[in-house]
Amino acid sequence: MREAFHEQLDSIFSDLAEICQEVETAVRHATRALLDGDAEVAEQVIAADANIDAARERVEDTAFSLLSLQQPVAGDLRVVVSALRMVSELERMGDLSVHVAKIARLRVPDLAVPREARPTIARMGEVAEDMVRRVASVIVEKDVEAAIELGRDDEEMDQLRRGSFAQLLGEDWEHGVESAVDIALLGRYYERIADHAVSVANRVVFAVTGRYPVAQEA
Amino acid sequence: MREAFHEQLDSIFSDLAEICQEVETAVRHATRALLDGDAEVAEQVIAADANIDAARERVEDTAFSLLSLQQPVAGDLRVVVSALRMVSELERMGDLSVHVAKIARLRVPDLAVPREARPTIARMGEVAEDMVRRVASVIVEKDVEAAIELGRDDEEMDQLRRGSFAQLLGEDWEHGVESAVDIALLGRYYERIADHAVSVANRVVFAVTGRYPVAQEA
Repeated sequence: MREAFHEQLDSIFSDLAEICQEVETAVRHATRALLDGDAEVAEQVIAADANIDAARERVEDTAFSLLSLQQPVAGDLRVVVSALRMVSELERMGDLSVHVAKIARLRVPDLAVPREARPTIARMGEVAEDMVRRVASVIVEKDVEAAIELGRDDEEMDQLRRGSFAQLLGEDWEHGVESAVDIALLGRYYERIADHAVSVANRVVFAVTGRYPVAQEA
Repeated sequence: MREAFHEQLDSIFSDLAEICQEVETAVRHATRALLDGDAEVAEQVIAADANIDAARERVEDTAFSLLSLQQPVAGDLRVVVSALRMVSELERMGDLSVHVAKIARLRVPDLAVPREARPTIARMGEVAEDMVRRVASVIVEKDVEAAIELGRDDEEMDQLRRGSFAQLLGEDWEHGVESAVDIALLGRYYERIADHAVSVANRVVFAVTGRYPVAQEA
């Protein structure tokens, strides 16, 4: 009975890691679609989101049947409940990548991101992608230290977003309102992807240790 | 044992309804702070968010102990798991109200919303507040019909957001980039509050019937 439980739990965590990889691809492709003005890649991101949604349903079904049939308590219960929350957040990260891809698609054949804003947005995309990649490894390795580190690295995303705001509200901004609104929303989407990455990592810590990292409360 | 279970479950649902009311107040006050440029009301929203967070923790603790000690199955399990998700979404709605309040506070003594944009933003605030109010009653009454109706009414919010975008991207927009970015982000925050309201209502339907309303998939 306990062995069956832990097998199913392992299968949930490998599903979560797989979803995380799909989200990583979504973030990478969405950023590429944005910076290259590539409608085809944007469409790929939008279409692939259905896989993430389907994978979420699978994880939810497995977790639910695990709760129902195995009736875990204490630490085991905590892990299953954490997995349910993690999968919701991963799905949201997929949705946010779709939002980025849709802004890219909307502006084709033009680029949504003007030249001066390109370095910041490109870096936001990199940071987000890197954070998602590291969440996958936090999930697989159940690495509490790496999870806590991820929380600290979220600060770079916040700085990027502040820098981006300063740029588009500055006197040198020559690209008008539409472009500024695109950049502001893109900044918001990347920031939320990073927030969710930190939150998923924190849930791994909670699942493993029974406590959230202290930094989360700061 | 079953009686104790249902008592605790009732207490979770009345906590959820109470949190919903706090969120409704947060939305109303945030909109007022925004339209009146009232820093004091904005501060109230920001400070009161700690109560919502604390209430979320209480619901999570109760739900967790319920899962652990009573080991519910089937329908009962579904209800507890739904409650855990609903409380996360309600907390998010509180956070989004704080975002609205912070934009209000940032622009004091000016108004973040210029005169022409006022009707749309005011209506967004009303729709969001109304939706949150109705979610509270969906939770209390477990009213499946009202939950499904809420999903349909979310369309008004989407229309408002499209109208708001058209306005700030139109040739008549005279308020520059900063104001346009504020309005775009405000539109996003109100839209997300409405999305979460629909999602919480759908979870009530799921808890009661075991299925999500079909409209959610559309």
